[in-house]
Amino acid sequence: MKPIEIKRKVLHFESGNGEWIEDRIVTEYAVTVKINGEEFVTMVCSPEYIEDMVIGYLASEGIIKRYEEIENIWVQENEGYVHVSISKINPFYQNFQNKRYITSCCGMSRQGFVFVNDALTAKKMDAITIKVTPDDCFTLMNNLQGSADVFKKTGGVHNAALCDLDGNTITRMDIGRHNALDKIYGYCLKNNIEIRNKVLVFSGRISSEILLKVAKIGCEIVVSKSAPTELALQAAEELGITTIGFVRHSSLNVYTCPERIIQTN
Amino acid sequence: MKPIEIKRKVLHFESGNGEWIEDRIVTEYAVTVKINGEEFVTMVCSPEYIEDMVIGYLASEGIIKRYEEIENIWVQENEGYVHVSISKINPFYQNFQNKRYITSCCGMSRQGFVFVNDALTAKKMDAITIKVTPDDCFTLMNNLQGSADVFKKTGGVHNAALCDLDGNTITRMDIGRHNALDKIYGYCLKNNIEIRNKVLVFSGRISSEILLKVAKIGCEIVVSKSAPTELALQAAEELGITTIGFVRHSSLNVYTCPERIIQTN
Repeated sequence: MKPIEIKRKVLHFESGNGEWIEDRIVTEYAVTVKINGEEFVTMVCSPEYIEDMVIGYLASEGIIKRYEEIENIWVQENEGYVHVSISKINPFYQNFQNKRYITSCCGMSRQGFVFVNDALTAKKMDAITIKVTPDDCFTLMNNLQGSADVFKKTGGVHNAALCDLDGNTITRMDIGRHNALDKIYGYCLKNNIEIRNKVLVFSGRISSEILLKVAKIGCEIVVSKSAPTELALQAAEELGITTIGFVRHSSLNVYTCPERIIQTN
Repeated sequence: MKPIEIKRKVLHFESGNGEWIEDRIVTEYAVTVKINGEEFVTMVCSPEYIEDMVIGYLASEGIIKRYEEIENIWVQENEGYVHVSISKINPFYQNFQNKRYITSCCGMSRQGFVFVNDALTAKKMDAITIKVTPDDCFTLMNNLQGSADVFKKTGGVHNAALCDLDGNTITRMDIGRHNALDKIYGYCLKNNIEIRNKVLVFSGRISSEILLKVAKIGCEIVVSKSAPTELALQAAEELGITTIGFVRHSSLNVYTCPERIIQTN
């Protein structure tokens, strides 16, 4: 296993005085995914849960629809390759790869999709499977931050957790925001874990890409410490996802779909 | 001009009480770059300085080497397109696009390059054109944070500034970390502004991608509020870039090339 952080000498200045100290630095690791022998993508990530990350990525990109479509997956860690065998790649994927959703007038669809594949893969959340109180959100965010060991030591990673309200949690970290989500998604697909009745808690900003990833994973509620973008909120409204942001101490904002919030006061 | 932030009603909870308030949300805008009529890339960005961003991106990707190689550039803002005419695309770019630098053994070169194009475009900083004191770094970071209006209002953007030590500064913000740097780079190329004698100040983490962007821009010193990754530091050592991180109040870390630091004590 490659390390996810290493020690390094740094010249630390504190109130004008410089001294060499030992610091912990987060690593980055490049893996190239080969599908049926052909190079498909190079992902730069924190080197843990690589197989799950690749499975989650392939599913969220729409290349596979179910875990069972992967015939074989082999992580060649020292060489930096992941070899995947898939007998039947989703034909929609190949047809629409990187095609813009609306090319006619406004450069952006009303729904906030930029690429056709996103629109094909994102799931619409029309049910209300789970509801949360503001206190649930504070607890979930505190738990995420409490478990974020590598972040505390190195300041360099994003954390994500898929949680139910009984304290069960799958937490992953990565230097890449998308990767942390892909690692959770791949784990759930491989282990057949239900996603809709859970909350996705995230340390980073909610850009449109992150929101679409949440929709592809199939989560109804996303909770973030940080801010969303307008395009993410347009997509969230269209897809029926409850977006909660700026969760700090005793305050938070609900941006979209407040029908999943239980107001206790 | 598209707005870079908009107002939106959000359900704000503070100590248990929920009320609808007006909040400011940062926008995302997708522009597709067409080179000589062919779709090349779709960039998602904050909608200002788009022409500069595209120029900086094309140069940092190695598609052009000088601004003068662009025969024509037309930002079709409402439609979300940027049309670029280039008579002669750098042939190295086309040959090595997305080719991994080392595919033989370790999945990663000693220099921290993942892609051949990065190795071709990054500039090695073998001179010492500029030196800074720790106090310079605190001042530059304070100035960046002081000018970061949109961040304060929305919490959703990254800021970057190219500064000399006389108070002259080019500051750009974007929801995408790379875009802020590309906007600065494109502006400098277009206006023939020297870069080597300046410091790049950045609000985000220094990943290997960001470090390589700094090297492509041609800056000797990068100063960040946040943490670097190990791969970024390997590349910084190889390229001779001084990396300063975790600039907070009266403390900071110098990670690489401390010969550009003036110790005052």
